[in-house]
Amino acid sequence: MSTGTNPNRFWSRLVRELRPYVPGEQPRMSNLVKLNTNENPFGPSPRVSDAIRAEAAETLRLYPDPEAVALRQALAAYHGARPEQVFVGNGSDEVLAHAFVALLKQDAPLLFPDITYGFFPAWCRLFGIEAETVPLDSALRIRIADYARPAGAIIFPNPNAPTGIALGRAEIAALLQTHPGQPVVVDEAYVDFGAETAIPLVASHPNLLVVRTMSKSRALAGLRVGYAIGDAGLIEALVRVKDSFNSYPLGRPAQAGAVAALEDETHFQRSLALVIEERDRLTQALTRLGFEVLPSAANFVFARHPARAGAELAAELRAQAVLVRHFARPRISDYLRITVGTNTQTDVLLAALARCL
Amino acid sequence: MSTGTNPNRFWSRLVRELRPYVPGEQPRMSNLVKLNTNENPFGPSPRVSDAIRAEAAETLRLYPDPEAVALRQALAAYHGARPEQVFVGNGSDEVLAHAFVALLKQDAPLLFPDITYGFFPAWCRLFGIEAETVPLDSALRIRIADYARPAGAIIFPNPNAPTGIALGRAEIAALLQTHPGQPVVVDEAYVDFGAETAIPLVASHPNLLVVRTMSKSRALAGLRVGYAIGDAGLIEALVRVKDSFNSYPLGRPAQAGAVAALEDETHFQRSLALVIEERDRLTQALTRLGFEVLPSAANFVFARHPARAGAELAAELRAQAVLVRHFARPRISDYLRITVGTNTQTDVLLAALARCL
Repeated sequence: MSTGTNPNRFWSRLVRELRPYVPGEQPRMSNLVKLNTNENPFGPSPRVSDAIRAEAAETLRLYPDPEAVALRQALAAYHGARPEQVFVGNGSDEVLAHAFVALLKQDAPLLFPDITYGFFPAWCRLFGIEAETVPLDSALRIRIADYARPAGAIIFPNPNAPTGIALGRAEIAALLQTHPGQPVVVDEAYVDFGAETAIPLVASHPNLLVVRTMSKSRALAGLRVGYAIGDAGLIEALVRVKDSFNSYPLGRPAQAGAVAALEDETHFQRSLALVIEERDRLTQALTRLGFEVLPSAANFVFARHPARAGAELAAELRAQAVLVRHFARPRISDYLRITVGTNTQTDVLLAALARCL
Repeated sequence: MSTGTNPNRFWSRLVRELRPYVPGEQPRMSNLVKLNTNENPFGPSPRVSDAIRAEAAETLRLYPDPEAVALRQALAAYHGARPEQVFVGNGSDEVLAHAFVALLKQDAPLLFPDITYGFFPAWCRLFGIEAETVPLDSALRIRIADYARPAGAIIFPNPNAPTGIALGRAEIAALLQTHPGQPVVVDEAYVDFGAETAIPLVASHPNLLVVRTMSKSRALAGLRVGYAIGDAGLIEALVRVKDSFNSYPLGRPAQAGAVAALEDETHFQRSLALVIEERDRLTQALTRLGFEVLPSAANFVFARHPARAGAELAAELRAQAVLVRHFARPRISDYLRITVGTNTQTDVLLAALARCL
């Protein structure tokens, strides 16, 4: 029954059976080239810092707005939606967790790709959701046709993680076409780096929820802000779960900082362009080193070398103070997931890789 | 089946049945005397503001420490515990929610007072926990002897909410004595304002979890930081749930601000003394106005007037721009819960009440 490391008699039955998600290492040493958790190498807009400083005041004694009205209005305006179509949470992980409870727990199984964000199966275990994985094709792509099977709901990231491969909006529209009765959640954590957003499909699909994070493209991983855009009926379901869990998920600095981030489109677009440019350079250089690099629409690349095992390469990079992510999972254990860093970080990575090969 | 306001066919069965917690009103008008959500009238330590300002930087692009090691070390040092006996979360509501899943969901029912924190039954509904309420005695006190019945686990606030009445540590020790096999959670949200903490009992009781918030006595409601102290085995259960839900619950500003708050004992003690002094003055003045005021060890008082219904009084105060909290619940519908404010706020409240009576 128990898979716990140290279960004791006071644990609930459920907690004994959990197998938690394992996030990428957050090392406490400095001087590492940290390309393992898809952080943005360029900082957030300076307006975010100004907004947070303004909140560092006596008003911290007061609760934040539990409905985050100002932030939801700003997000609605940014995405051409109405505030009641917007939900915010403590990072997109919290938003997704609430979506699992509110929308993805149905009588028929939840479908998601066999290779995808590792938190999906963790939430299924936590919330007792029956899941069925749908294999990626041999090129590690999501095939919409493979989802034509009995389903209670569907979730996938677009671009997918950790492959970085994106579906086009037309493909997502086709999936929605064949599943009008099932909630479909698209996790767009990385979409700003080069994929097509599904948000325009929300207006005509009351079953579509699009989840976003400010951690990646907005460079605010340290602030914890995620959100979802969808039909007001879906958002109401998320609100009900949130108000049954934690009324005040976003503090004052987080709400103010997130609003400020949305006000600096120039910084945002420049940061995206730099990441995309560097991704191209990294992809070309890795290819020259003999790597097979999947086509990425994210701020990371997923690559394997025909001559070297992924775990080995990751360990040898770590010995040279370069962190990348390796997943010891079927089908992808030969790959490395490498965050797109600064020009200098790419150079250090490439030099370290050249020494490994 | 459905109790929802606007259920739709995409909602999970669970979300249709939820009855979320309703927090105190967070008004968007200014110039209100806001005595309805137990916020501290005195701001946080200036060191907190300094620490948050220092985090308003380029480093926001990086994830926070998912294990919050620095904060857990600071809390451990403050409370004379070890870091592995400390868990932190996004407000004590998140900590409590995880405790419901990890520890309080047992085969036998969870016991808590019939009059207590309104989130307890909301979490039971969300997590499918069978609960049994234990009536307060006729003076609205928790009687430990009444908990001598079959139980899977026990939770109560100390001081209790919304009564403000505290149990002594000896009474909690007696309860632990008779329930060595059940998890016992004590929510000490208000304990700093005049009750005895149960933390010294943690060393000898592997089933005791004490939950705290920085929202009240540390005046940091706007930052969202809560924590728990307990045996390392209980903490490990909370960590497993947290890592199955959201790896990074506390952002960088929250972690840094919370550490700074613990470093300013002078500010903390002065703020507590001022609240306690003002609570005494408020209690005496309300008594002179004919109110029956329960003995409070919290930063609020719970009071009723023999001649006036609670709902009516609350509405008449609101018409005079004074917010207090009223609960339309059996046994306490005649009471008002009034936060202890500043000297000036107390004067405005008393003048408004005098006009009502």
